[in-house]
Amino acid sequence: MSVVAVIITDLFEDAEYGKPAAAFKEAGHHLVHVGLERGETVTGKKQETRVTIDVAVKDARVEDYDALLIPGGYSPDKLRAHREAVDFAQKFVESGKPVFAICHAPQLLITAQVLEGRRITGWTSIRQDIINAGAEYVDEKVVIDDNIVSSRHPGDLPTFIEAALEKLAS
Amino acid sequence: MSVVAVIITDLFEDAEYGKPAAAFKEAGHHLVHVGLERGETVTGKKQETRVTIDVAVKDARVEDYDALLIPGGYSPDKLRAHREAVDFAQKFVESGKPVFAICHAPQLLITAQVLEGRRITGWTSIRQDIINAGAEYVDEKVVIDDNIVSSRHPGDLPTFIEAALEKLAS
Repeated sequence: MSVVAVIITDLFEDAEYGKPAAAFKEAGHHLVHVGLERGETVTGKKQETRVTIDVAVKDARVEDYDALLIPGGYSPDKLRAHREAVDFAQKFVESGKPVFAICHAPQLLITAQVLEGRRITGWTSIRQDIINAGAEYVDEKVVIDDNIVSSRHPGDLPTFIEAALEKLAS
Repeated sequence: MSVVAVIITDLFEDAEYGKPAAAFKEAGHHLVHVGLERGETVTGKKQETRVTIDVAVKDARVEDYDALLIPGGYSPDKLRAHREAVDFAQKFVESGKPVFAICHAPQLLITAQVLEGRRITGWTSIRQDIINAGAEYVDEKVVIDDNIVSSRHPGDLPTFIEAALEKLAS
């Protein structure tokens, strides 16, 4: 079973956290919520979901986790204003461990400058940012490029979760 | 006196609409609210400000306006998912008429692909996107590059408004 870090802050897309989190737990994986401050509670865009941060990102170490989930919404935009969050995402991608990115999640990877030459998808509004970052934008339900698994929006969640669970099982 | 188009949708940063709008009106300028649907009411992030859309962006023509204001918040991210909004912003920049962009507003200009070689500022989270779009990111209160006037965040509003009013008067 794997330990999955979830990097998250306020205004995340509720379903993009809640559905993968439930599926990962059901499959026996353990989740650790990494955020800006240990102990704070962050809330989804729809105000439906609250998450307590287990580990401050400044104290988080890639070697303690097997995979990273980055939910979308406006959480990635907020996270990437903080150097420690950007550095953590950068190290995770570079470690080769699986990174699950949905919707606006690639924003964090753009600021981390790890998308050059990668194939990735994401929410349509950030399409040009993904291309400008040197990546190939692929308009598909799920795109698997080595360790990065990406999807476009909540409608892609079943396919996204299936692909993520396969990576965790492999 | 000038006619200023304000391109706006839900989740705009309240002060980044409200303060320039009040200052422009006080100086005798006329505002026209351009959005996704004529007659709809859009609401700021802080739920403090409501704006009624006067003209759908699909029907808006650059020649009817003297300048464009793009408030920040998450409104630009939502607008740039719509081709008509992107095209309107592109034509406005290319017309040479003043464009006032604050906070996340450059996101719309990135998707419009009009920032290559320009000097601009914006909210820190979109810094890498601005650089990847081929622009020079300048960390200053206000940056005036030909017809584009830009600022970083609500704290820059007094300087931003002063620079915008000067452009409208010239």
